[in-house]
Amino acid sequence: MKLYEKLADEIAEAVRRGVFAAGERIPSVRQASQQHGVSIKTVLHAYALLESRGIVETRPQSGYFVRDGATAAVGGAGEPRLSRPAAPPIPPVAAAVDVSRLVLSTLRSIGAHDAVPFGSPYPDPSLFPWRRINQYANAIARRHSSWNLIDDLPPGNPELIRQIARRYAENGVPVDPGEIVITLGATEAINLSLQAVAKPGDTVAVESPTYYAMLHAIERLGMRAIEIATHPLDGIDVDALAEVIGRQKIAACMVMPNFQNPLGFRMPDARKRQLVELLAAHDIPVIENDVYQELYYGDTRPSTLKNFDTKGLVLHCASFSKSLTASYRIGWAMPGRYRAQVEKLKFLNTLTTPSVPQVAVADYLRQDGYDRHLRHVRKVYHQQASIMTAMVQRFFPAGTRMSAPQGGYVLWVELPERVDSMRVYQAALARSITVGPGMMFSTGDAFRNFIRLNYSYPWTAQTEAALKTLGELVARMA
Amino acid sequence: MKLYEKLADEIAEAVRRGVFAAGERIPSVRQASQQHGVSIKTVLHAYALLESRGIVETRPQSGYFVRDGATAAVGGAGEPRLSRPAAPPIPPVAAAVDVSRLVLSTLRSIGAHDAVPFGSPYPDPSLFPWRRINQYANAIARRHSSWNLIDDLPPGNPELIRQIARRYAENGVPVDPGEIVITLGATEAINLSLQAVAKPGDTVAVESPTYYAMLHAIERLGMRAIEIATHPLDGIDVDALAEVIGRQKIAACMVMPNFQNPLGFRMPDARKRQLVELLAAHDIPVIENDVYQELYYGDTRPSTLKNFDTKGLVLHCASFSKSLTASYRIGWAMPGRYRAQVEKLKFLNTLTTPSVPQVAVADYLRQDGYDRHLRHVRKVYHQQASIMTAMVQRFFPAGTRMSAPQGGYVLWVELPERVDSMRVYQAALARSITVGPGMMFSTGDAFRNFIRLNYSYPWTAQTEAALKTLGELVARMA
Repeated sequence: MKLYEKLADEIAEAVRRGVFAAGERIPSVRQASQQHGVSIKTVLHAYALLESRGIVETRPQSGYFVRDGATAAVGGAGEPRLSRPAAPPIPPVAAAVDVSRLVLSTLRSIGAHDAVPFGSPYPDPSLFPWRRINQYANAIARRHSSWNLIDDLPPGNPELIRQIARRYAENGVPVDPGEIVITLGATEAINLSLQAVAKPGDTVAVESPTYYAMLHAIERLGMRAIEIATHPLDGIDVDALAEVIGRQKIAACMVMPNFQNPLGFRMPDARKRQLVELLAAHDIPVIENDVYQELYYGDTRPSTLKNFDTKGLVLHCASFSKSLTASYRIGWAMPGRYRAQVEKLKFLNTLTTPSVPQVAVADYLRQDGYDRHLRHVRKVYHQQASIMTAMVQRFFPAGTRMSAPQGGYVLWVELPERVDSMRVYQAALARSITVGPGMMFSTGDAFRNFIRLNYSYPWTAQTEAALKTLGELVARMA
Repeated sequence: MKLYEKLADEIAEAVRRGVFAAGERIPSVRQASQQHGVSIKTVLHAYALLESRGIVETRPQSGYFVRDGATAAVGGAGEPRLSRPAAPPIPPVAAAVDVSRLVLSTLRSIGAHDAVPFGSPYPDPSLFPWRRINQYANAIARRHSSWNLIDDLPPGNPELIRQIARRYAENGVPVDPGEIVITLGATEAINLSLQAVAKPGDTVAVESPTYYAMLHAIERLGMRAIEIATHPLDGIDVDALAEVIGRQKIAACMVMPNFQNPLGFRMPDARKRQLVELLAAHDIPVIENDVYQELYYGDTRPSTLKNFDTKGLVLHCASFSKSLTASYRIGWAMPGRYRAQVEKLKFLNTLTTPSVPQVAVADYLRQDGYDRHLRHVRKVYHQQASIMTAMVQRFFPAGTRMSAPQGGYVLWVELPERVDSMRVYQAALARSITVGPGMMFSTGDAFRNFIRLNYSYPWTAQTEAALKTLGELVARMA
């Protein structure tokens, strides 16, 4: 198959899955060229092919649009289609943040082990090599009778830091091992990074919807959040952000460029660069939550904001909780020019990250089973993304739209506008089914009719029955 | 031996050890009665006996004083004697806090395993049942293949909470299990407690010297510390605190009433009550760091500030790090009326304390080996306190004074005034000996000529040689 045919098929598939709905513009030739890493000529070829198939049409001065009836042409169900960026109030207003009570009570109910875990934020641990990692931990605990708190003080265990740095270097991310600070999960990395660059009362720009861990960090320090329109495929709207920056003081920006939770997009390189450059021009630090970096679909690993950072303004945060072991709580920060502050705050906040888990993970990484594990997990998640997408199409009522995840393991589902996802959440819980209500992902109620679904667990008859039940609940409320 | 003879011997021993120096007042009859839990009559008998032995004398309207030459009467060396409360600048001034760099660099150098660990803040782990606890942890990890982050969300594992509550109840501390929040060590409990009651810029009253973890919590949140004169035997000077409260706004008070680090005192019950009542009268919350509660010498367990709390203003913080296992980082807060805020902050700060360590500790506590372990550790520490005290007397130059620890495992040593403990620290480190420099325990330099010595490790020929070397270093600088 020729490259332009492959690209045309990919876009046709996106139309089929509702990523681009009838009447919507598909990426410009230049955008598509950057996103897919192909020449302008290849894109022009692909678009001509799509046009000849009746899937897109050109409009003068405007670009390429999905034709009415195109979904029939590609075999899709017409609905659901891609959720669109929430229109923020104009001008957007910084809001005090108080979302943690809802998140905690949601997580608590999800914690009931017999519930169907569509609402879980965590990957199915059964895919994870926890047995091997526990073996390393046991061996270490036996070896070091006198292990105590003074071992592996901040910045952390040197061998673990070396292993993390090696992985970044191998993946083309510029890294100085001396920059890495080990933390208690990405949660602490994000908290400390934000504390290093902003103070109570400051305003922080976030995506909309945004991952609630970002909102928690803002809430913890008594800052304010301003939500920036975010495209479900391309990420934060850099122009909208520029406009906000022109109008008011923004102390920091927090984003999740790769496989954002909940939208699942992979921000194109050009847009990552544009974002970093905009913020650099205003000397605004950006906290990058990259916990899903290893869970990409397809063959190409995503870049990070660090790849485009020339001024040390990117505070990159990540962890092994979503890709290796959640229970060990090993995360890290690469805080650029704020490295000294983050290390100090780590020491003040929790003194040290426990040693044995640090060394156990380092031992595991050195044995080189990690890449094999990741290849397997990526394949499974990618397959399960297709299943979940198809099943939502099948069981949910007309008017339902959804995201097109490019990595990770969550689907963002926009329900018909009348549906209140908190009511869905309650009704589902009564049937031992959990969902993530959209209200967790914003300071306001723009996502009142959205839910997040976790598809990391194996698809079983029970899962399917639960999703059917969920679809019926939603249909009744629509 | 009669009770009054026993009491007289104890006081004679305190004089011999320099706790009470020539010319100093010993506790009033009423104080001694409360401290030792004996009748006024018994104290009067004991004091009469001491007078007849030429150890104390009465002064009209003033009380009982140690006679000149009394140390000869009790066989002591005359010096060293008890360090006195640092005279704070009058009026005391709230200071910005920036002590963490010094502490971190000190801990790092202590982390070198071949150095003699007089400077370590942690107990010798070889006395601890780490092997059994690790066995529990391994068994749990094997049992729960799907253990993940959602288990044991804040407030924490219910069985661990129940076990902690049971111990308090058995020891006469009023406790509602619903009040307990599990944290990542006492460090996090203290941090979150302070954050729940005060905000950046606020002034917090602390002991002088104060344990640096308290100063870290203040530094972390950008608050200010005001140091209150603290008696080496009785704890914080409640009158001095009252005076400060009368003069300026104090947002919170942070104390360590039992076996304070570094002074080692056990605050008498009457004084604890007085402190709680003063703060309650002004609605000022008090954070009680009680990590050494289990490490008392003698037969009677100390009370806590919680015993005297009627308004829910005591935020009690503790951990297993000093009494059971340091590497598991299991601590807790009982935050009184601030319980909801602390639980929420815990969730925001680190999401959750890892489950397996929580359950492993709960399992260990249920098996009932803990009290046997503690009895052993207390006996060892008490013995080693005597050895360390005697050896400092033997090897250190005239003008050296020291604390009289009533529990825990550190000795606070006042060097002759000219000696700079940072220079001692550096010179000792060059000889692979660590000490805790006094500058870590204050925002100012009032304790420039103090060091803290850890005596939890077994006394060996090597230890003795190291202490001798240390004494010679000090003598050369004196």
